[in-house]
Amino acid sequence: MGDAVARLLAANAAFYRAFAAGDMEAMTTLWSARRPVACVHPGWPALRGRKLVLESWQVILRSPPPVTFADAEATLWGDLAMVLCRENVDGTTLVASNLFAREREDWRMVHHQATPLTATPAEGAVPTVSVH
Amino acid sequence: MGDAVARLLAANAAFYRAFAAGDMEAMTTLWSARRPVACVHPGWPALRGRKLVLESWQVILRSPPPVTFADAEATLWGDLAMVLCRENVDGTTLVASNLFAREREDWRMVHHQATPLTATPAEGAVPTVSVH
Repeated sequence: MGDAVARLLAANAAFYRAFAAGDMEAMTTLWSARRPVACVHPGWPALRGRKLVLESWQVILRSPPPVTFADAEATLWGDLAMVLCRENVDGTTLVASNLFAREREDWRMVHHQATPLTATPAEGAVPTVSVH
Repeated sequence: MGDAVARLLAANAAFYRAFAAGDMEAMTTLWSARRPVACVHPGWPALRGRKLVLESWQVILRSPPPVTFADAEATLWGDLAMVLCRENVDGTTLVASNLFAREREDWRMVHHQATPLTATPAEGAVPTVSVH
């Protein structure tokens, strides 16, 4: 379990390294080739399927914005897992859900969605609940 | 498989019925009580854990906005599955990823994230790729 979480968080870190470096080869390897995949970039319509998802990253990685991540937290559901983290993309803070599927010892990305943290809440007021 | 997809889409529809009706009891039942859950409302920080997630829905469902959904598409990864759909929340169009875990014959929600479709893309330009 500990190893699985460490490998999951390493896969998430590798995703942001590939993103920041504009490394399309690494990004291609990171995304699962065996499972259905999807991606929701902020403001974009949902992209379903490896072809569309990788095409979208090709567009983005042509001129990758400065991107960092923080506060990565793992949630495991067996062979599917999620890393929630904050992204800083060119000065904008976003909240990202990164889903990974276990393939042998590796975790491959199957879904990514990022939402600007400062977007006007459309589902309700800013939470009165604590997140800590 | 066909039945699983039908039940998955029915669970997704039930989520929006509970949302629109401000039905906290139905919303509480919809969310998994057995698996780790999380939720990213648009503009909000990530909420992890059933307590925080349900508290956030309690806040929202006190005065639920008019909400409808469309274009629901199912992605299955075994006992975890995702429904991607568009939400219309009080006139704002969002793209939602709704994750469900299979529990016996039911699908219970384990994650929800919604991103305004019209948000300024922070990860890249509006896609040149077709989504059809």
